[in-house]
Amino acid sequence: MKRTSRPPPRLIALLTDFGHRDPYVGIMKGVILSRAPAARITDLCHGISAQDVRQGAFALMSAVDYFPAGTLFVCVVDPGVGSRRAVLWARGRRHEFLAPDNGLLSWVAEREPLREVRRLAEPALFLPEVSGTFHGRDIFAPVAAALVGGVRRERLGPRRGRMRRLPFPRPRRRGRSLQGEVLAVDGFGNAVTNLVPGGLRRGAAIECRGEKLGPLKASYASVRPGRALALAGSHGYVELSVREGSFAERFDVRVGEPVHAR
Amino acid sequence: MKRTSRPPPRLIALLTDFGHRDPYVGIMKGVILSRAPAARITDLCHGISAQDVRQGAFALMSAVDYFPAGTLFVCVVDPGVGSRRAVLWARGRRHEFLAPDNGLLSWVAEREPLREVRRLAEPALFLPEVSGTFHGRDIFAPVAAALVGGVRRERLGPRRGRMRRLPFPRPRRRGRSLQGEVLAVDGFGNAVTNLVPGGLRRGAAIECRGEKLGPLKASYASVRPGRALALAGSHGYVELSVREGSFAERFDVRVGEPVHAR
Amino acid sequence: MKRTSRPPPRLIALLTDFGHRDPYVGIMKGVILSRAPAARITDLCHGISAQDVRQGAFALMSAVDYFPAGTLFVCVVDPGVGSRRAVLWARGRRHEFLAPDNGLLSWVAEREPLREVRRLAEPALFLPEVSGTFHGRDIFAPVAAALVGGVRRERLGPRRGRMRRLPFPRPRRRGRSLQGEVLAVDGFGNAVTNLVPGGLRRGAAIECRGEKLGPLKASYASVRPGRALALAGSHGYVELSVREGSFAERFDVRVGEPVHAR
Repeated sequence: MKRTSRPPPRLIALLTDFGHRDPYVGIMKGVILSRAPAARITDLCHGISAQDVRQGAFALMSAVDYFPAGTLFVCVVDPGVGSRRAVLWARGRRHEFLAPDNGLLSWVAEREPLREVRRLAEPALFLPEVSGTFHGRDIFAPVAAALVGGVRRERLGPRRGRMRRLPFPRPRRRGRSLQGEVLAVDGFGNAVTNLVPGGLRRGAAIECRGEKLGPLKASYASVRPGRALALAGSHGYVELSVREGSFAERFDVRVGEPVHAR
Repeated sequence: MKRTSRPPPRLIALLTDFGHRDPYVGIMKGVILSRAPAARITDLCHGISAQDVRQGAFALMSAVDYFPAGTLFVCVVDPGVGSRRAVLWARGRRHEFLAPDNGLLSWVAEREPLREVRRLAEPALFLPEVSGTFHGRDIFAPVAAALVGGVRRERLGPRRGRMRRLPFPRPRRRGRSLQGEVLAVDGFGNAVTNLVPGGLRRGAAIECRGEKLGPLKASYASVRPGRALALAGSHGYVELSVREGSFAERFDVRVGEPVHAR
Repeated sequence: MKRTSRPPPRLIALLTDFGHRDPYVGIMKGVILSRAPAARITDLCHGISAQDVRQGAFALMSAVDYFPAGTLFVCVVDPGVGSRRAVLWARGRRHEFLAPDNGLLSWVAEREPLREVRRLAEPALFLPEVSGTFHGRDIFAPVAAALVGGVRRERLGPRRGRMRRLPFPRPRRRGRSLQGEVLAVDGFGNAVTNLVPGGLRRGAAIECRGEKLGPLKASYASVRPGRALALAGSHGYVELSVREGSFAERFDVRVGEPVHAR
């Protein structure tokens, strides 16, 4: 395609735990498009479990590298909505973010350190009435429109030195073996661990809940349908799967479950 | 962002009970984009429960104020598809609507009275073959494309004086107390009532299913996680919630459940 | 609407079994928009059951006629991801397709025969690192962006004479009666059969799981709420439904269930 002479406006990517049953995501888009009619909006994910900040942090970390430079991620997984928790704007090397100050931006820094963080403090940028329960509509959406419209960063609010962080769990070495844990479980039942394939001893055998999965396989097709395996997953971590099945369901595995590499 | 010299085309917002399991919404978008290639389409919501006209009417009422002037809402919750029920085009102060004549547009008039209503009656605007089961594809989508393309309103069909309306339930005063009901339950389990915060006696205590919720709180953060509360919700009504939990599930509450303010 | 002087870029329609719980679809869009910033992307459907190639083939067949000429369908229902199965580009009369060589494109040929098929074999068009589990992100998305950007078809890879096909089940004639089967079940519980209304004897009575549904009705409204019926469905086939209910649930019907027309 020929590039148009004028570059398309910056992309807004939405990440929420609002699900698809209610019109909440649609209403956020309505607000953005009311104030920035030419905004380009895309959905990163709205299927984060309700109030699961950790799952949201993982999704954002997994996705950020694959989005265009300049994308503004609007992230609303916000159990503290209406409390005194701050709403943050942050800028990394390639992207910008809006998120509550509850740890949601903790893990994106594994991929892209945040260079500047501000606390939103300019009510003139919000909707005229701010509810106590839906800041996605009343604060995040209008500020996103203002950012796409070119508002000066200094106007958003004062710089913020610290923000709340969820510690990223690092595997621990125990003699010749490495103990990690399950970071996330996806909708197919794949269990993403915090073990990095490059950090394993060559041929190391993976084990979880007593299930011996052997060394990393190249792909699902390396085992027969219905068999469990460990492989280098698409998130950059060791992943535990059942070919054409659900590892998490078969072995009743949840986030935090220990995983061993020996 | 600099406005482009040419304004973007009018926005089409889709509201259906089609869900996300099937390609029905995608097919509607295909029809619209086949006939209006530059149309801007956004999803208001497709998670309305199957054939639940009342839930659709509530979603539309909640959303309409937040969408750009000129937005065309295409609303397909249509248990009578294929029957002799009419399909309506309606124009309010700021928006336009397509919907079956089954009450789906009843409550939007709480926010924006409808100034002109027409019954679709020009088959040349529909797909050449109209099925008995999928008017979203065969009637609503091509007429939406025609509207974005600037078809004259008179061509749609004759004016319609009346349309079917679901009565909007008003709270009833009983001595010093006010009896309302649950209007809607969202995916987080919040119960939206028909009580308007401004209409309550100062400090009035809310009660539902024998659960005493006390006076309205400012936000979820006013109680500890797991505790129930009543607050001024984002829809403009009193809402009943459990902080980081589901009010509807905890107290087995459904639409129509009585709620008292004393 | 006035057409802009420059036609909008070709449409990309996404069909996957990724669901909405995880950010996988969002990440694919991020990759496409990183490499083709002006691409227009729409969702056909992401609710295909995990690894259900047949359901995906049916959805694509149902949808293809309703999309603009030139649409590129990016289809990822791919139980063999990471194996030696090929990824195909195919061109029909009006549309183009990317899909794994697993039968996903079998039934679209019922509507639009494929004129040219190539096997993707140019890693320079893929992401620099190709995982073993997420070719939607690493292969399909960047190749889609390249196609929208005008890459020459010859560069994609060599022509492919054959591809894997799922046989399309044809009804069988048995004396005066016709035996078909359920092709697909949708989210409303409608059972789409492989019987073509025009191929039935006038007034033929439909039967499934011993339930006598009588001759085809005109629409759901031809029976009372809660009653079962057969009608000419929107996919072009006989469909079995319960008005305002679920046929599949009521009669425990799944794909492959025999259906008789007598």
